[in-house]
Amino acid sequence: MDLTGKVAFQGERGAYSEEASLQFFGLKVDLKPCKTLPEVFRCVEKDEASSGVVPVENSIEGSVNQTYDLLLDTSLKVCGEIDLRIVHCLIANQETNIKGVKRVYSHPQALAQCRGFLDQYGFELIPFYDTAGSVRFVKENRLLDAAAVAGSRAAEIYGMKVLARGIEDVPDNFTRFFVLSKHEAQATGNDKTSIIFSAKHVPGVLHSALEEFAVRGINLTKIESRPTRVKVWEYNFYLDFEGHQNEEKCREALKGLRMKTSFIKVLGSYPKSK
Amino acid sequence: MDLTGKVAFQGERGAYSEEASLQFFGLKVDLKPCKTLPEVFRCVEKDEASSGVVPVENSIEGSVNQTYDLLLDTSLKVCGEIDLRIVHCLIANQETNIKGVKRVYSHPQALAQCRGFLDQYGFELIPFYDTAGSVRFVKENRLLDAAAVAGSRAAEIYGMKVLARGIEDVPDNFTRFFVLSKHEAQATGNDKTSIIFSAKHVPGVLHSALEEFAVRGINLTKIESRPTRVKVWEYNFYLDFEGHQNEEKCREALKGLRMKTSFIKVLGSYPKSK
Repeated sequence: MDLTGKVAFQGERGAYSEEASLQFFGLKVDLKPCKTLPEVFRCVEKDEASSGVVPVENSIEGSVNQTYDLLLDTSLKVCGEIDLRIVHCLIANQETNIKGVKRVYSHPQALAQCRGFLDQYGFELIPFYDTAGSVRFVKENRLLDAAAVAGSRAAEIYGMKVLARGIEDVPDNFTRFFVLSKHEAQATGNDKTSIIFSAKHVPGVLHSALEEFAVRGINLTKIESRPTRVKVWEYNFYLDFEGHQNEEKCREALKGLRMKTSFIKVLGSYPKSK
Repeated sequence: MDLTGKVAFQGERGAYSEEASLQFFGLKVDLKPCKTLPEVFRCVEKDEASSGVVPVENSIEGSVNQTYDLLLDTSLKVCGEIDLRIVHCLIANQETNIKGVKRVYSHPQALAQCRGFLDQYGFELIPFYDTAGSVRFVKENRLLDAAAVAGSRAAEIYGMKVLARGIEDVPDNFTRFFVLSKHEAQATGNDKTSIIFSAKHVPGVLHSALEEFAVRGINLTKIESRPTRVKVWEYNFYLDFEGHQNEEKCREALKGLRMKTSFIKVLGSYPKSK
């Protein structure tokens, strides 16, 4: 993997996607914020960035489906995964203290995740389209009686103050990201592989497909079905399993699966996140 | 099902959830908008509404996970499903025509879904937390050089003008909703059943669980895994299948599944959406 080139991510500066990129590539990485997910893919495809970071299972931004739709069409490979622990912070201008806060801005799902904390203070909650964007809004409008809920990175980027850290009700809040590039990742002995396959909507077809993994003792770590919407009664399955596509038992399972399904795309093999 | 009582939905007046409620219960239904999904559940649990409508697979509001988390804990039953075709409209004040529009507000995913149309006009796109809310914003601030992207219901509710209808790039855009109540739905002969079950993370466990359906010729219509986050290596599976839980082959399959899994909850059986 190219650890020296630019890394494209989707969102404002200070977004959780930026935190994920720093966690994976280190603090010295050269980041390129993109407005949309398709832009992240385009940047890497056109060599304007050497890697891209996109959310796949995301309790806040809800962009999983769009990522998978883009993965279906791209020539890029998934070459890494990141599990980011989401730590929400209450962020305000330097002059503001928590007693002076009347209104709190953030993405509705972030506000909902911090409801226990926010309700104690009786703040008015104002929905905003983005977590990091709400920090920028409170800063740029010099709102001294307001705060925003976002990651601590947003406070750093905008020179704002963290009034409270880890204010989410459920502490085990993770978002999973994929790292994309033009290059396959080498096998490390502790890998995962992500694939998409299609199957007709007949009883038992999924059961029969999964047999290829079960008989070889291959662990599945994620499965999801979505109607293709293109052909009625045809489904796409998003499957992650343990192992690298170059390992023999994985190669055999994929070969068996190819015989049973109408379409299969290997998105990539990559080292498991720590 | 009680078709006379109040129906709670999440979102602003004019939201796609409101459209879904009208599609299912008819235009005369008495609607109760709720700010959050937990509020919808609470309303029905406390008899402040006889039914609730919640999104489960949603390309815009991204609230699927939250709905499933709430379904895990509630005593309510899923007694109906709704597939709503999402038709995005460009909506403005009555005095505005399309040539006068400079800026367009909406949820980032709605803007992304209409990019082909919006780019033709070179509008500035401004993300907003909610589709229907962006219509209200354009109205309340009397923005005569702006428009919003939302469903046509939002235009009706706020007395605004539809400048263009069906502006999404991909026309096959559906959102699926569950109807919740305290009562089970009767079998109609054309039903589906939704369940959640947990299984340990060992190779073949899912394959073995699905065998119960495959051997009885029961069609699966959705499957999704999510880590429980509570116990490491334990997964929740969200499964929909064709048939009513009171039909013999479904009852047998559920009985077989109970033997193989550590936890199972039947969310409900309900007539398939048309």
